[in-house]
Amino acid sequence: MVAVSLCAIGVYNIPPIAGFSVPWPIVVVLGTTVSLMAGFKNSQVLVRSAEALQAFAQISASSRMLSRFCADFTDEPTMRMLVFRHIAWMTALRHCLRRPMPWESMGRKANAEFRKRYHIVEDTTSLTHELETLLGREAAAKILASGMLAAPLQLLDSQGHQINLLFRDARLPPQVYAELLKLMRDFHDQQARCDRIKNSPYPRQYAIVSSMFVAIFCTLLPFGAVPVFAEMSKLGGVWSVISIWLTIPFSALLGWMYMSLDQVGESTSNPFEGGANDVPISQICREIEIELRAAMGETELPAPLLPRNGIAT
Amino acid sequence: MVAVSLCAIGVYNIPPIAGFSVPWPIVVVLGTTVSLMAGFKNSQVLVRSAEALQAFAQISASSRMLSRFCADFTDEPTMRMLVFRHIAWMTALRHCLRRPMPWESMGRKANAEFRKRYHIVEDTTSLTHELETLLGREAAAKILASGMLAAPLQLLDSQGHQINLLFRDARLPPQVYAELLKLMRDFHDQQARCDRIKNSPYPRQYAIVSSMFVAIFCTLLPFGAVPVFAEMSKLGGVWSVISIWLTIPFSALLGWMYMSLDQVGESTSNPFEGGANDVPISQICREIEIELRAAMGETELPAPLLPRNGIAT
Amino acid sequence: MVAVSLCAIGVYNIPPIAGFSVPWPIVVVLGTTVSLMAGFKNSQVLVRSAEALQAFAQISASSRMLSRFCADFTDEPTMRMLVFRHIAWMTALRHCLRRPMPWESMGRKANAEFRKRYHIVEDTTSLTHELETLLGREAAAKILASGMLAAPLQLLDSQGHQINLLFRDARLPPQVYAELLKLMRDFHDQQARCDRIKNSPYPRQYAIVSSMFVAIFCTLLPFGAVPVFAEMSKLGGVWSVISIWLTIPFSALLGWMYMSLDQVGESTSNPFEGGANDVPISQICREIEIELRAAMGETELPAPLLPRNGIAT
Amino acid sequence: MVAVSLCAIGVYNIPPIAGFSVPWPIVVVLGTTVSLMAGFKNSQVLVRSAEALQAFAQISASSRMLSRFCADFTDEPTMRMLVFRHIAWMTALRHCLRRPMPWESMGRKANAEFRKRYHIVEDTTSLTHELETLLGREAAAKILASGMLAAPLQLLDSQGHQINLLFRDARLPPQVYAELLKLMRDFHDQQARCDRIKNSPYPRQYAIVSSMFVAIFCTLLPFGAVPVFAEMSKLGGVWSVISIWLTIPFSALLGWMYMSLDQVGESTSNPFEGGANDVPISQICREIEIELRAAMGETELPAPLLPRNGIAT
Amino acid sequence: MVAVSLCAIGVYNIPPIAGFSVPWPIVVVLGTTVSLMAGFKNSQVLVRSAEALQAFAQISASSRMLSRFCADFTDEPTMRMLVFRHIAWMTALRHCLRRPMPWESMGRKANAEFRKRYHIVEDTTSLTHELETLLGREAAAKILASGMLAAPLQLLDSQGHQINLLFRDARLPPQVYAELLKLMRDFHDQQARCDRIKNSPYPRQYAIVSSMFVAIFCTLLPFGAVPVFAEMSKLGGVWSVISIWLTIPFSALLGWMYMSLDQVGESTSNPFEGGANDVPISQICREIEIELRAAMGETELPAPLLPRNGIAT
Repeated sequence: MVAVSLCAIGVYNIPPIAGFSVPWPIVVVLGTTVSLMAGFKNSQVLVRSAEALQAFAQISASSRMLSRFCADFTDEPTMRMLVFRHIAWMTALRHCLRRPMPWESMGRKANAEFRKRYHIVEDTTSLTHELETLLGREAAAKILASGMLAAPLQLLDSQGHQINLLFRDARLPPQVYAELLKLMRDFHDQQARCDRIKNSPYPRQYAIVSSMFVAIFCTLLPFGAVPVFAEMSKLGGVWSVISIWLTIPFSALLGWMYMSLDQVGESTSNPFEGGANDVPISQICREIEIELRAAMGETELPAPLLPRNGIAT
Repeated sequence: MVAVSLCAIGVYNIPPIAGFSVPWPIVVVLGTTVSLMAGFKNSQVLVRSAEALQAFAQISASSRMLSRFCADFTDEPTMRMLVFRHIAWMTALRHCLRRPMPWESMGRKANAEFRKRYHIVEDTTSLTHELETLLGREAAAKILASGMLAAPLQLLDSQGHQINLLFRDARLPPQVYAELLKLMRDFHDQQARCDRIKNSPYPRQYAIVSSMFVAIFCTLLPFGAVPVFAEMSKLGGVWSVISIWLTIPFSALLGWMYMSLDQVGESTSNPFEGGANDVPISQICREIEIELRAAMGETELPAPLLPRNGIAT
Repeated sequence: MVAVSLCAIGVYNIPPIAGFSVPWPIVVVLGTTVSLMAGFKNSQVLVRSAEALQAFAQISASSRMLSRFCADFTDEPTMRMLVFRHIAWMTALRHCLRRPMPWESMGRKANAEFRKRYHIVEDTTSLTHELETLLGREAAAKILASGMLAAPLQLLDSQGHQINLLFRDARLPPQVYAELLKLMRDFHDQQARCDRIKNSPYPRQYAIVSSMFVAIFCTLLPFGAVPVFAEMSKLGGVWSVISIWLTIPFSALLGWMYMSLDQVGESTSNPFEGGANDVPISQICREIEIELRAAMGETELPAPLLPRNGIAT
Repeated sequence: MVAVSLCAIGVYNIPPIAGFSVPWPIVVVLGTTVSLMAGFKNSQVLVRSAEALQAFAQISASSRMLSRFCADFTDEPTMRMLVFRHIAWMTALRHCLRRPMPWESMGRKANAEFRKRYHIVEDTTSLTHELETLLGREAAAKILASGMLAAPLQLLDSQGHQINLLFRDARLPPQVYAELLKLMRDFHDQQARCDRIKNSPYPRQYAIVSSMFVAIFCTLLPFGAVPVFAEMSKLGGVWSVISIWLTIPFSALLGWMYMSLDQVGESTSNPFEGGANDVPISQICREIEIELRAAMGETELPAPLLPRNGIAT
Repeated sequence: MVAVSLCAIGVYNIPPIAGFSVPWPIVVVLGTTVSLMAGFKNSQVLVRSAEALQAFAQISASSRMLSRFCADFTDEPTMRMLVFRHIAWMTALRHCLRRPMPWESMGRKANAEFRKRYHIVEDTTSLTHELETLLGREAAAKILASGMLAAPLQLLDSQGHQINLLFRDARLPPQVYAELLKLMRDFHDQQARCDRIKNSPYPRQYAIVSSMFVAIFCTLLPFGAVPVFAEMSKLGGVWSVISIWLTIPFSALLGWMYMSLDQVGESTSNPFEGGANDVPISQICREIEIELRAAMGETELPAPLLPRNGIAT
């Protein structure tokens, strides 16, 4: 903005083309349009973020019910296998969701820098290692055979298979089987929902038009502001010297505000990218894991993930 | 606003820099933007509040059905145990929801002061005590063993366990068991929903951008208004003396209005913080409790919670 | 508005303070803000109204299914008892929903006056009497024992009890019992929904901020309009005399329009208050009653409730 | 608009009151308000239309499932009876939905004229005749005994009755019975939804305020435009003569645009009125009918309803 | 835009009618209206696109569950038949959805040109051939007998028929049958949803009004800008010559921006038209196909469809 402002001042004063400016009404119309676009965009982007949060809230509720059914209707080893596989599913899911996508903004240098201030668990742990701890080396290898991306589905599928077998062998009452299928249905739905959010960015043409408007608005703003402040120099006194330079702080302030308005939406549009405004899926999954393990009577529980620098992940 | 206005008047009159002002069109663009931001923000925040209310309306409906099923299909002691545990769950839930969170505004002095005008039941009662009355000392201690935050889940889980056992022992017809599971599912869902609202504030960057715009608008407003009123002094008469001072009431009025527009959203963004605009969860839970106890034939019913100073809690 | 306009004209002309006016840009910003606030508010309020309508549409659909199941799977006296109790529930529900609430606007004199132009059935009938006709004196007295407000729940609860008993006594096939429970669940849900709308007004701080903006806009409007019309007097001719008085009709027209914009939302915000824009619950319930009675083979059917002066209630 | 514009030009030039005009800022504020109102109104009205479309999409899906179940689990004559009664229900439903309502705009002459360009099947067929073809004369007479409006419900009710009887006589497996009940539930729900849309217009006070704003905007517009164009006459040349007359095309163009903005919403607000923007219920029902008949092995199928002049009905 | 700008400059300078221009406030009002219309339109159109995406996410989740049930509860040949018919259904569905509709924009030359940069699988494969590979020549011919459009329904219907038969022959446990029916219900629903989106364009009158406003705004814009820039020529120097020509780049820039704002919505309004912003249904279906085939133990899997030039289809 400062560069553009200087440029605007220069153009206004360099003799041959002195006096160039952009009429205010254009700036006003653009300002209104920019606010509107940003308002609509931010609303729509918030919906994505809210939906991601809902999916994980739903997973919490269903996980608790799953744990209860396993404990009450299956024997100890089956229960442990089902619950650990469920934890493994959540682990695989969050690793997949945190993978980088081409349209996400985590690759940008500023974001990478900022990322050091908080801690994305998926950055420092390996899915392979976690699955081995949860399922044993052999099972983990089998699950990962068709790639990390397929792992969550493989796990859900095995889970469904085992539940079907329990029912076929008459080791589950039909009512409980029906309830477990509802839970499986829910896990499949929530996974499909998360995948949908992860795989389909907020339509790029929408985001680009919005950013373009902000850019043009910010470029024209100083050209519109220059003559207004220049006129003030007629007041004489100190103003005759400095007034025109006021263009710089003013344009910078307003430009920065409208740009941050646009950025705010950008920063929440990908709720699983590993940014500071992500849905805190690692934390939620850890909490569920602690609950499930405690319910099985384990005593060595993993520590809850605390926010670092106030940023929950 | 008065300070800023005085400052604006000062700057306008102090000789060396006399005549400084902000051009109106900037103020107009900012005003439009502020209205739009506030409008979108208030709409989004209202959704949170409405969702919280829905969750408790849903809990009401399900509680009534639970009570009916317990009375018709379980024996007296089982029914009492189930219903009292349900009341205990609601009690634990509202205590958890009313706990302070770092981003809530109840810590601010003005709010703490205002809080004396109404009565948040959770402020003056202890969860431990209430649970002991409902479940007996031993059971309460067990529930609270893993901390207050885990209490609602512990209670829901015990509830689920007992219902599962009843079914396993063939003391519930399958259809009724299926219905009870639907109710349990619903309680789990509503709890997850309330937790989601409690644990995830309205995105802070959205709120901050909105407040920032209001702040800048209110700062620039008097600087924009000064010359307009100053010009009126040319009319002579009384105006030549007082017109410029009109900046103060005008800026104060408008500034205050736009700030309250922004505040309105803020005040409903956390529907469980214990503020005057909270969803009245204590009152709703008390009403359900009265209904459930009356349905069990109890005669000593707790009194309904009446609004104090017109504020329902 | 006329008074304010006169005041504005006066202030503009009384010598010592002659020439006072409010700059137009302030009025423009306020106008935009007012439109936006009114737009958002009206949208949100419409949602309440639409939800109320949906609840009753849902009750219609479920009532028809209930009637069919009762006729096909229970004996004549049971069917009659269930259906009449269902009609009694709807009756009690609409009486409860039409009770006055402190924040509703029916107490205002203008509204009370206007109310004479249409007919709210609940004004001229007594719940006690209606219940006695439907259920017999004894049963009605029992239902009303715990107050009118508890009556709908009491009725739903008895309904649920009887259905449970029928199932316990093996007088209902399990599938049909499951369907009846779904219907009961639906009635409970719709009642909780209606109660939620009735008990929680549209957040008062939102409504107040919106009205405040309209009020201030309408107050400043004439002060902004006066100089514009005053200037026209320079045109000479007739204008020199009358132009300034044009402030009055103009301000009145615009002020009235913006006030009605704000009022439109107000008038639908409480869809059960007994106003002319209410959801026509009496009419809907009467239609359902006619259908249910006809389905039982009754021949003396109550007359449908026709709109009076085009206002359905 | 032309008349109003002429009037505005006249007033501006007739000597005694020459020079009258409306200040632009008023027009700007009004213009913004009108756009906002129209925007909100059109969004809300679109929801009604979209909901109507959804209802019929849902009916399509459920009809196909019904046909499948009937074919696989009932004998030939029962299947035919059920499927034909279902077609009869859709026929009765669309006849009811296409009946005129007092607030619909089909009575207006322009609309009636335009209606000749497309073809509403319900205009040229008689429900009685169609029902007789589908159900036989006797059954049709019985269904229509209580009036056309009650026919769809009568048909749904008979359908439910027959399905209940099939189950009572153990001619349907419980699982299939449960599925059929879900379909019946769905038909009841969709009918209630359509009836709700048909019987409750978009709130009239909302529509009126919006139209009022447009009307006032269009009236003031030429008065605001006159002086602007009049000033151009100072440029001399041809302009001194014609400039003021430019008010007419300009006001007409803008006025017509804002009026059509308002009209666009109006035209979709009643999606079953028989207008050119209706949800094409006749066409959808005909398609379902063809599918159902083909599935029963019929060979003489009715022709699909093609759009006439590009207007599907 | 350049042509219109030249025209505006011409009109402004040609002697007899020199000085013609459109007053700015008109342009400002139009600009605000255009932004609002575009904002609302883009929001509504995004909903269509999001819904299409949801439908396919839902199909993914349900397909996985179907595959699991088939593998666990049916014998090998039945499983293969069911799964292949399911893949055939998805194939037929995407071929139908990608067929051209009169209101879609793919026929336009620019779009056809651009289409060469990515690859719509349905353009280069034949439904007949694909169905023959999946189902065998005979079955494919039978399915296609009643036309391509009816193929998806025929396939779903056969699927339902076979599942019903399996249940009738007691080769499926009732619980599993119930689950399969839920999946069938879901496929029917998602198909009805996709058909609804495909068959009902975004209401044309809405789109037209919006485009009309943009067109008029862009036409009037240069006429409004000319005098503003013309005035700059008074500054002398270079400006006296070139200033007026600045109208062209400015009008072009702004006009192009507002037009692209309008176009952005247009480009997503038909999410199945085969454009670059389509929901990538071919890719999603291919992924499901790979999963289903891998789950059946096939080893020769089709390759996943990669985005071409960054455009997923």
